Amino acid sequence: MRTTPNEPGTHYDASTSREQRTTILFTIQDQVGALDECLRALKKVDVSMTRIESRPSRSITAGYDFFIDIDASTKEVVQQVIEAIKAVNVVKAVSAISNVDDVVSGSSDASPETVPWFPRKVSDLDTFAEKVLEMGEELSSDHPGASDPVYRARRLEIVNKAKEYRTGQPLPRIEYTEQEKETWRQVYTRLRTMYPKYACREFLHVFPLLEQNCGYGPDEIPQIEDISRFLKDCTGFTLRPVMGLLTPRDFLNSLAFRVFHSTQYIRHHSDPYYTPEPDCCHELLGHVPLFADPNFAELAQEIGLASLGASDEDIEKLATIFWFTAEFGLCKEGENVRAYGAGLLSSFGELEYALTDKPEKRSFDPSQTAIQKYPITEFQPVYFVADSFHDATTKLREFNKQMRRPFQLRYNPYTQSVEVLNSKDTVQHFARTIRNEMQLLTSALEHL
Amino acid sequence: MRTTPNEPGTHYDASTSREQRTTILFTIQDQVGALDECLRALKKVDVSMTRIESRPSRSITAGYDFFIDIDASTKEVVQQVIEAIKAVNVVKAVSAISNVDDVVSGSSDASPETVPWFPRKVSDLDTFAEKVLEMGEELSSDHPGASDPVYRARRLEIVNKAKEYRTGQPLPRIEYTEQEKETWRQVYTRLRTMYPKYACREFLHVFPLLEQNCGYGPDEIPQIEDISRFLKDCTGFTLRPVMGLLTPRDFLNSLAFRVFHSTQYIRHHSDPYYTPEPDCCHELLGHVPLFADPNFAELAQEIGLASLGASDEDIEKLATIFWFTAEFGLCKEGENVRAYGAGLLSSFGELEYALTDKPEKRSFDPSQTAIQKYPITEFQPVYFVADSFHDATTKLREFNKQMRRPFQLRYNPYTQSVEVLNSKDTVQHFARTIRNEMQLLTSALEHL
Amino acid sequence: MRTTPNEPGTHYDASTSREQRTTILFTIQDQVGALDECLRALKKVDVSMTRIESRPSRSITAGYDFFIDIDASTKEVVQQVIEAIKAVNVVKAVSAISNVDDVVSGSSDASPETVPWFPRKVSDLDTFAEKVLEMGEELSSDHPGASDPVYRARRLEIVNKAKEYRTGQPLPRIEYTEQEKETWRQVYTRLRTMYPKYACREFLHVFPLLEQNCGYGPDEIPQIEDISRFLKDCTGFTLRPVMGLLTPRDFLNSLAFRVFHSTQYIRHHSDPYYTPEPDCCHELLGHVPLFADPNFAELAQEIGLASLGASDEDIEKLATIFWFTAEFGLCKEGENVRAYGAGLLSSFGELEYALTDKPEKRSFDPSQTAIQKYPITEFQPVYFVADSFHDATTKLREFNKQMRRPFQLRYNPYTQSVEVLNSKDTVQHFARTIRNEMQLLTSALEHL
Amino acid sequence: MRTTPNEPGTHYDASTSREQRTTILFTIQDQVGALDECLRALKKVDVSMTRIESRPSRSITAGYDFFIDIDASTKEVVQQVIEAIKAVNVVKAVSAISNVDDVVSGSSDASPETVPWFPRKVSDLDTFAEKVLEMGEELSSDHPGASDPVYRARRLEIVNKAKEYRTGQPLPRIEYTEQEKETWRQVYTRLRTMYPKYACREFLHVFPLLEQNCGYGPDEIPQIEDISRFLKDCTGFTLRPVMGLLTPRDFLNSLAFRVFHSTQYIRHHSDPYYTPEPDCCHELLGHVPLFADPNFAELAQEIGLASLGASDEDIEKLATIFWFTAEFGLCKEGENVRAYGAGLLSSFGELEYALTDKPEKRSFDPSQTAIQKYPITEFQPVYFVADSFHDATTKLREFNKQMRRPFQLRYNPYTQSVEVLNSKDTVQHFARTIRNEMQLLTSALEHL
Repeated sequence: MRTTPNEPGTHYDASTSREQRTTILFTIQDQVGALDECLRALKKVDVSMTRIESRPSRSITAGYDFFIDIDASTKEVVQQVIEAIKAVNVVKAVSAISNVDDVVSGSSDASPETVPWFPRKVSDLDTFAEKVLEMGEELSSDHPGASDPVYRARRLEIVNKAKEYRTGQPLPRIEYTEQEKETWRQVYTRLRTMYPKYACREFLHVFPLLEQNCGYGPDEIPQIEDISRFLKDCTGFTLRPVMGLLTPRDFLNSLAFRVFHSTQYIRHHSDPYYTPEPDCCHELLGHVPLFADPNFAELAQEIGLASLGASDEDIEKLATIFWFTAEFGLCKEGENVRAYGAGLLSSFGELEYALTDKPEKRSFDPSQTAIQKYPITEFQPVYFVADSFHDATTKLREFNKQMRRPFQLRYNPYTQSVEVLNSKDTVQHFARTIRNEMQLLTSALEHL
Repeated sequence: MRTTPNEPGTHYDASTSREQRTTILFTIQDQVGALDECLRALKKVDVSMTRIESRPSRSITAGYDFFIDIDASTKEVVQQVIEAIKAVNVVKAVSAISNVDDVVSGSSDASPETVPWFPRKVSDLDTFAEKVLEMGEELSSDHPGASDPVYRARRLEIVNKAKEYRTGQPLPRIEYTEQEKETWRQVYTRLRTMYPKYACREFLHVFPLLEQNCGYGPDEIPQIEDISRFLKDCTGFTLRPVMGLLTPRDFLNSLAFRVFHSTQYIRHHSDPYYTPEPDCCHELLGHVPLFADPNFAELAQEIGLASLGASDEDIEKLATIFWFTAEFGLCKEGENVRAYGAGLLSSFGELEYALTDKPEKRSFDPSQTAIQKYPITEFQPVYFVADSFHDATTKLREFNKQMRRPFQLRYNPYTQSVEVLNSKDTVQHFARTIRNEMQLLTSALEHL
Repeated sequence: MRTTPNEPGTHYDASTSREQRTTILFTIQDQVGALDECLRALKKVDVSMTRIESRPSRSITAGYDFFIDIDASTKEVVQQVIEAIKAVNVVKAVSAISNVDDVVSGSSDASPETVPWFPRKVSDLDTFAEKVLEMGEELSSDHPGASDPVYRARRLEIVNKAKEYRTGQPLPRIEYTEQEKETWRQVYTRLRTMYPKYACREFLHVFPLLEQNCGYGPDEIPQIEDISRFLKDCTGFTLRPVMGLLTPRDFLNSLAFRVFHSTQYIRHHSDPYYTPEPDCCHELLGHVPLFADPNFAELAQEIGLASLGASDEDIEKLATIFWFTAEFGLCKEGENVRAYGAGLLSSFGELEYALTDKPEKRSFDPSQTAIQKYPITEFQPVYFVADSFHDATTKLREFNKQMRRPFQLRYNPYTQSVEVLNSKDTVQHFARTIRNEMQLLTSALEHL
Repeated sequence: MRTTPNEPGTHYDASTSREQRTTILFTIQDQVGALDECLRALKKVDVSMTRIESRPSRSITAGYDFFIDIDASTKEVVQQVIEAIKAVNVVKAVSAISNVDDVVSGSSDASPETVPWFPRKVSDLDTFAEKVLEMGEELSSDHPGASDPVYRARRLEIVNKAKEYRTGQPLPRIEYTEQEKETWRQVYTRLRTMYPKYACREFLHVFPLLEQNCGYGPDEIPQIEDISRFLKDCTGFTLRPVMGLLTPRDFLNSLAFRVFHSTQYIRHHSDPYYTPEPDCCHELLGHVPLFADPNFAELAQEIGLASLGASDEDIEKLATIFWFTAEFGLCKEGENVRAYGAGLLSSFGELEYALTDKPEKRSFDPSQTAIQKYPITEFQPVYFVADSFHDATTKLREFNKQMRRPFQLRYNPYTQSVEVLNSKDTVQHFARTIRNEMQLLTSALEHL
């Protein structure tokens, strides 16, 4: 999907968030009965808890981490719960994330460091399911399907499956109608013929694999379950269904986990070549192929990791970088320039236009790219050209160092969770991991 | 579950393997129409194919890997298919794994190097589902339930769910009977009181978490779906249901993917303190807690990785090491010795006995441990004591270097697959990964 | 000393190079009598050899490397020797470096890759001793001492010691005259009072150490032997005496070995605040202090390593970068900007001017800095400001990647030689080194 | 030379140490005038100081390290000086090394951790020059030259050059007499013919290089200056002249700096095939060749690094390991066993004997080897066989981890000094170094 970070007025409407949710995290020291003591203390608090998880702590040796979701309708209640937890004498550190009182994306109230909330493990992405911007369940007036009740009902049906989806479940399969398939066929057929001329090498390498393994073709709309499984094998990326536009923060955060939110509905049949919102044509034709490429996957995850706990200004910069890479990026291929951005690869008009001499083309340079203004309803006047995905990632990593986040994060692909490298324990364990890998690399070199 | 590697006569019966299965892997060079050409060639072969997957190649830049399963009843047919594939001019390398003609665990017919077959990705473990040794569907005569038709029917019911399970599906939930729960209660209650005195620190640290998060307790038999989700969060280990005893090779191979095969049926109610085969009491009380410990998880995976493509002799050594660690391992805690092996932690009698002065205790030393003989039907006369899981892993890694495998393997936790580090491409990519991690470590050190 | 790369007409005069020198390198396979066979073949060649060294090969397992210097007056003779060597059947690879026929800095005639010659070990720097540009032994007319025969004789006396110096010898000690000391005193006294206000933190940290350990002070001109010993303890940098301006290539090349060429004569007493050429005031006050700083030392060596075998264009770029860092560099200190370039720190006028608002100040960015034009006889209109030496080094490393050198080099500080990482052997050995260091780092983290 | 660690009674005589020497190290915080304040405080102390060096601190950011040698005749004086230094308010940490009052090898009086003294930089080895065990200047009665006044005078003449030698000076050249050369010729000629049959591959690879480059041959005794230069080019090892037997601690400590102490006198002409003490035949024929091999050099340095600050028991173990490797080591070559120990390679009789079936041969295993008893005046009954130098080093590194030293050390080959990795600063800097190397390795892999 496409994120549209800096058009606040248009897209963001806090009232679409109907849910009141608060997550509290805290760490306790292991000692006899410590876990039970905590549970007893929580039971005394007069608030309903929808999740209580305890795990071995990653930051304290022989400690425990707690993850608790509560139903709290006011800030006061949240504060009360926090105080109750703090009162337990084995408790070491408490932080809370709450969307009570206008706090949609969540921010850390109780933590001494005011770092915006971010997901720690892949199942935390479940909390994004209902926090969509406009067009989650309603359509804006400029949508070609806005006045078609059949289309709106169908869209709602599909969107509800996304709303109910939770991590670990099989992805919803949609039985598409003939009309929907016809829309797909028109888009697919026309774009397919353009790709050899305009798309980058990596896209062209992967596309035939999607045809062979995931049911890509003019006749059927591929199912995201099949695609997700394929991507998992290639790079570890997986798809999740989504109702519509997420906040830029939530959308980028999920990339840290190599998770991409994909819509499943399709544009209105009346105009197969136009849609004001992301739809399955955009996701499956524009975005999916690149996520099968290891270097692009690394680039996307790097944006995601930088976005975790980032300030609002940094989120805006990262969303802009996403815009000029994953959505509208161009790249060099020897003497030529080719497209790899999904916004281009799912739009005939702009794909052709972008590779003419009309728009301005600059070298991808994160510090410049991050602050470039752009229109969202017309062709881009400026594009950024990457030397390669690897080079773009290296530059991005260098750029990210400037962000003032008071900790370093590491993604643990085994547990699909994010580790904060702020204790001797975590750093030591990480160093050991690298040493072991270095040992393996040396052995591999000897066998080469 | 417990593996019983070196009692061949008793346990292994090739006739239990009713399936004829052959997997062929080959790699092709990307060029216009290459994928289609291959598919056309495969269609011409007059053999039914149950799986055709193509993926971006990990060993050749811009190449493709094919994974094909065929139904072939004789070696000749397999050979024919291989020849047909070789005839395609874009094909670079072909290898086959087949259990046709008594080859159960599979071996590489077509590869120039005669390395035994091994799973490359987590879904390859699906091929183990039906390859159990004795007591997959039948019970041996010494089983207390052998002559109880109700027990046998119930066991078959549960075992069939394991047989049908495939990667990616939710793990089967079993509704246990009151009689089964009663058996569990007796085992659980008695062992639970012994743990504080005998079990190692890591076990005791995790156990309360299992009670809080996974339904451990005297009243209910926990569900492996809940446990697997918990373990995934802790170390990335997951559970898979299994019909009974796997071959040592298959069982160890799965550890490379941080996958543990767990039975779901329970021992016969007539004797709650005895079972001749692994059951859910053994798995859930003995094995599961340790898989939540990062250092033990590393040790177990290291055994698994060493077993991939290992010779039969090396498999026997590794299974023996597994026996003296994961099944009957002891470890030091300051001046004391405690138990961490599942065979001990699920058996009152041996748990108590092992920590007396009666049995001999030696320092864990892989080269010695790997060749130690042991009885499988009585208490062990010799145990091996590890300094720590980390120390045992370091020693094991050193020991594994002596195995003569003509390549080095790396587990990729993103794709849950095993990469052979035998090409410049793969080694280079790995080196880059380490460099990036090293960069992150440096930054983390600066923030410490 | 100061290098003046892009004023070719003025400074460079090939005729000052009176020497005809050719070095030939070749590698042979170890087998019975191989070394003797080679020596016999060399003896047959009718050319006088001034050096024959054989060493264990670093690129071939169990091979030998030969380094041979010959007196050859024409290219034909050189070619003849090469052919004679090639004829020996154990010889694997031959390359020659010659300054016969106008080839001053040397270039590889016989090598298949036309990489300019570069020193492989620290003693190779001895070949630079006589290859100075203008003002090696003669003074240009604009020099204040040009018409003072006493000054010229004294300068020649000092310069001759540099000419005769060879690696491993103690550095020449000069007994300075009272007149010379008086010149020094005037320069020293005035600059010393300015430093606290203008010089960077690292300079100010080191300066008192030079006073305590190396005889810095108004009364005596410090001896480079004492300074070199001190620098060696701090960062491994050492000094070498030099006759005058080296070619930029030679000068930069020596930095790869952490060797800095320092003049020992002093400017003419008639004008203590002016000199058209580097002298000991410039070297000892401007350059020396920074070479005691580990981060600056790394930056300087990085420029040096990039210059080895670089193309002429790249040498020009690197010399420009040296100019805008080591000679005229500024750096940030919180809100302030301070000087670290030797050209500034040895010149009252420009030191004061540079830190006013008059000149333009840009962020250090190697790709921009490398192509910036600059005057050499007046104050700089543009300066580049580094965030820190570490940051500048990181940026430089990134920039250097773009240079098209067909190999990677590694400096081995044990042997003080440069290793070409172009064989499996060398890369493997390097990987092992890193693995060992990683092991040590992990242990150190555990002890922290 | 040969170290003889565990025969204390025979070899060690404290009275041979005529010197009273104390070194004090302390670290101060940089602030205005801090250095001067310290110097003033030192001047007030009424003790003569023979060395005062200040350097940038490696353990404190922006701090200074002081190294001071004092002439103190009693412990009380030393203590007084320490108190005076502690009284200066910028001083952070003080430690002293003293051989006053029978403390020969020195131990840290003032440091909170009682770690035996060890050299921090290569020039610290100068303090070993006079601390020889028996036979520094006198000969024991069983020496064939004990009653030959001419031999004794000649030996003293040579030994005095070693006594006066200091780091950085050219190594003494000895003009050997015809009689001395004749002794050499006899030893050389006979051993030379034996090597092809008994010596290890690495020895045989290097030996011809010594003949070509360092003057090895029957007619002349090679000069250690020439050899040292050659070794430096090969592995960074250098030689130092020594009067006789050092204490095992001092001797091993120097190996950490890749420095080998070599005697220059030769055995008595009356019996060319016997000597009770190391002489130049033993050093140059036995030890030198191996120091040109990178893997052996690593092994030797590893022993040296482990010995720095080690307890007396650990020193004994390491000296025993040195004995069974560098002095009497055997190694595998395919099916054969060959000699690499200098005690063997410089003794016809034992070289032949060692490779027969008479003595026992065990696998090199540091934990066993370190505690093996051995005779020093007759042929060894037990030898240890290494798989390879690399393998021996790996095993040694593992073994060394068990030594209880409260810090980790890193050798910095640029500064030829030892860094204690006990502060965040030093660890961070080390991590950066590894990261940079990792970056270079990655680039090298891309160029391979």
